[in-house]
Amino acid sequence: MDPVCLVMGAGAGIGGSVGKRFAQGGYHAVLCRRSDDQGLQRLVQDIEAEGGAASGFLLNAAEENSIEERIDAVEKEIGPIEVAVFNLGAQIGDRHLADTSYKAFELGWRLATFALFRFASAIMPRMEARGHGTLLVTSPTAAVRGNAGQHSHAAAMGGRRMLCQSLNAEFGPKGIHVANILIDGAVDAPDTLGKLLGPEEFQELRRTRGLENDGLILPERVAETYFHIAGQHRSTWTHELDLRSFSDRPWWNH
Amino acid sequence: MDPVCLVMGAGAGIGGSVGKRFAQGGYHAVLCRRSDDQGLQRLVQDIEAEGGAASGFLLNAAEENSIEERIDAVEKEIGPIEVAVFNLGAQIGDRHLADTSYKAFELGWRLATFALFRFASAIMPRMEARGHGTLLVTSPTAAVRGNAGQHSHAAAMGGRRMLCQSLNAEFGPKGIHVANILIDGAVDAPDTLGKLLGPEEFQELRRTRGLENDGLILPERVAETYFHIAGQHRSTWTHELDLRSFSDRPWWNH
Amino acid sequence: MDPVCLVMGAGAGIGGSVGKRFAQGGYHAVLCRRSDDQGLQRLVQDIEAEGGAASGFLLNAAEENSIEERIDAVEKEIGPIEVAVFNLGAQIGDRHLADTSYKAFELGWRLATFALFRFASAIMPRMEARGHGTLLVTSPTAAVRGNAGQHSHAAAMGGRRMLCQSLNAEFGPKGIHVANILIDGAVDAPDTLGKLLGPEEFQELRRTRGLENDGLILPERVAETYFHIAGQHRSTWTHELDLRSFSDRPWWNH
Amino acid sequence: MDPVCLVMGAGAGIGGSVGKRFAQGGYHAVLCRRSDDQGLQRLVQDIEAEGGAASGFLLNAAEENSIEERIDAVEKEIGPIEVAVFNLGAQIGDRHLADTSYKAFELGWRLATFALFRFASAIMPRMEARGHGTLLVTSPTAAVRGNAGQHSHAAAMGGRRMLCQSLNAEFGPKGIHVANILIDGAVDAPDTLGKLLGPEEFQELRRTRGLENDGLILPERVAETYFHIAGQHRSTWTHELDLRSFSDRPWWNH
Repeated sequence: MDPVCLVMGAGAGIGGSVGKRFAQGGYHAVLCRRSDDQGLQRLVQDIEAEGGAASGFLLNAAEENSIEERIDAVEKEIGPIEVAVFNLGAQIGDRHLADTSYKAFELGWRLATFALFRFASAIMPRMEARGHGTLLVTSPTAAVRGNAGQHSHAAAMGGRRMLCQSLNAEFGPKGIHVANILIDGAVDAPDTLGKLLGPEEFQELRRTRGLENDGLILPERVAETYFHIAGQHRSTWTHELDLRSFSDRPWWNH
Repeated sequence: MDPVCLVMGAGAGIGGSVGKRFAQGGYHAVLCRRSDDQGLQRLVQDIEAEGGAASGFLLNAAEENSIEERIDAVEKEIGPIEVAVFNLGAQIGDRHLADTSYKAFELGWRLATFALFRFASAIMPRMEARGHGTLLVTSPTAAVRGNAGQHSHAAAMGGRRMLCQSLNAEFGPKGIHVANILIDGAVDAPDTLGKLLGPEEFQELRRTRGLENDGLILPERVAETYFHIAGQHRSTWTHELDLRSFSDRPWWNH
Repeated sequence: MDPVCLVMGAGAGIGGSVGKRFAQGGYHAVLCRRSDDQGLQRLVQDIEAEGGAASGFLLNAAEENSIEERIDAVEKEIGPIEVAVFNLGAQIGDRHLADTSYKAFELGWRLATFALFRFASAIMPRMEARGHGTLLVTSPTAAVRGNAGQHSHAAAMGGRRMLCQSLNAEFGPKGIHVANILIDGAVDAPDTLGKLLGPEEFQELRRTRGLENDGLILPERVAETYFHIAGQHRSTWTHELDLRSFSDRPWWNH
Repeated sequence: MDPVCLVMGAGAGIGGSVGKRFAQGGYHAVLCRRSDDQGLQRLVQDIEAEGGAASGFLLNAAEENSIEERIDAVEKEIGPIEVAVFNLGAQIGDRHLADTSYKAFELGWRLATFALFRFASAIMPRMEARGHGTLLVTSPTAAVRGNAGQHSHAAAMGGRRMLCQSLNAEFGPKGIHVANILIDGAVDAPDTLGKLLGPEEFQELRRTRGLENDGLILPERVAETYFHIAGQHRSTWTHELDLRSFSDRPWWNH
């Protein structure tokens, strides 16, 4: 039985590419996303066409028990989750405080922080019982600095980052690798950046900065680093690393 | 009419002392806390006995509209809030992930992160309309690192810290001073540390490390720094600073 | 005998203002700077005209023994140094790597890092013997991030910041307060910013951003915070804080 | 002609292992170290025995022109340096300020900071002319926090880290990948940890924490991550990551 790589947030960007990469590396990729069943099935078929194993599930992470039941079912029906990738985003664009409703603020937390807590609560005990496992978390720049307009996003992602640290502190010594991967730049991803910008602006950005100039982070390249981190020997683990295009300014430079 | 200094979380530690200090500096101190009406009344009387102005209100910050209605009432009945101090704690002691319930995790967020968002949502527009004002936030060490057992606390406080940054980024240029004060050490406070340790262990710690040796952070000394920060000229503002006893190790030293 | 506040780098900006502020607070201000004896004497006279005590010395900090001998002489002839302020700058403007000579790189280190080490080596044993004392260090944004063109400055100031931490770790528990004050914005200072920009551009910046709009950090306001930090009770010490104008973006915001 | 991977500081720990790994990946490994010619020749022979290409040079990095001339010679006689690894250490053990001589402080800077500046000054223009290249720098925990006794080491390594950032800021957009790899834990390395502890204590530590328990960072595992980072596509570069054993506490946890 193949080890399982479960991806929470497996859209057409980083999550889907990470699933593919682990499938190429011999994992059964279990892909979970909120919507677009067609896109999900296409992803599963792509992996299977390459000779890999994959399953896809639609799942609303904000819904009670959705994450927990999926993890239960995967462990029972597919196999032990060896690598768990938490890749849910919660970017809602820049909004003034006055335009950030309580509901939007809470939803940011539900998706970005609380969903990771639920995810970890369901998976870590199983990994602990097995004595090994890997939890890879995707974080945006907002996890390390709060820009104007990012009230909901920054608060939620700052919480996510600290949770990664407390999970690592408890579970690292038990043989479970927790890594926080900071995506510090624009990703060439139709499901997130594409939706934020709209189709025309997105294609223009891809044309000018991205495909010709490597100025957008390419999801399939990100996936290589996720795969490397998951393969690190336990004598030599990375907890946090950043990723951006060569032409992007790191968050700390003006 | 005196300018108002509103303190959310005005117990017998930092919050109460900060209220006192601002009252000494000519502010009407409005003290809000969850419980212990007797202690609250004593605090108000202490301030009045010194010739200062103070009002006290019991308030459950986790309850819907509690914060918002109090701010409305203060602005209408007492006066414009010039300095708003957010000092709610959410420490529940060290707990393994398996012992951290969803409810505990969510309550941490409700008190540490969401309550600050509600507090800011109610106060900032008023300060913005007036073109000035100060928001002082107390944060614990867990805001900058996630230790084992601190899942709820670290996630909530990491969120709080990023929210301070996004608030500062939006409101600084509008003349409102937002500062995050990192309390990186044990505070000589019966309401928090005292309850966490129990009365005997707390008194022993006070005796050995604290009163004789200045090894516990003294709330009335903290209050001096809060008052200084609130008085900084807008050409020269601090957004973040740390505080600890001389004998304590900063969080970054082993 | 008044306690001594020694300022290394007492030009017309932060250093001079800090000296003045401590003189107003009852200290004998000992002002050291590299050049402009006239400016130095004017500063001393200003302080004395206000009823304060001050002495001024020209001193090339890059020169062997210059700092050490001055400290010796001050301790012998004026009195014990209670507060030592290290305020030497080393900004040489933005230069590409190819335009940064070994000499420029080394000089940056000599002034920004090594001079602090020499300063501390001379002062800390005296403070340790007395069981108290304060070392206040000024750092620029380059101490926390390396921008393009800042090779010499960033390397030197990053070293300075870590040295502040190691000094604090050794001497804090011995009762000596070490604080690193991060000046994260442009200062209204003719000796540094003025020279970097040239007189016309500097006056234009002062006019548009500064005096009318509080958009430049005002040295006399900075001095208030230095004085406050030096006065903190040892139960409640700050090791690091940032300062910038309300209208400036903190270094972590884009 | 194979691309060259030049390793400055190629002892029996991380540096040597990194050289080996790049040789396995098709690079000509150029290994530079200060002493132990026998060990160096053994390393070269090990690589050649595996079918790889390697050259070894003794070199005192503190000496004038040593680094610069070696780089010149390598570029002329062996080939263009595609990957440059800067792995010089400067740990001298914990020393009180009073026991840290000016000479020791300066030597720390010469090896840890200035040698990197010289290394980069010699290599970056060549990489810039070619439009590609990778600079990998090893940093210790002291680069991010100054512990008691680490005055020389922390100041020097804090400078190194900021220099990595300023180099990245200037050269990233020109297609040159600069990464700072933070080794946050004890490494199973006889040349550094072994010498610091002495042979008996080192073997005891290896036995109890290391080989049986993966509690020491294994250099050959570190090398895998260096190789991965060097291979990242320029759309997706890491600038900083940490490495430690699963059982070690990260520097930010107490």
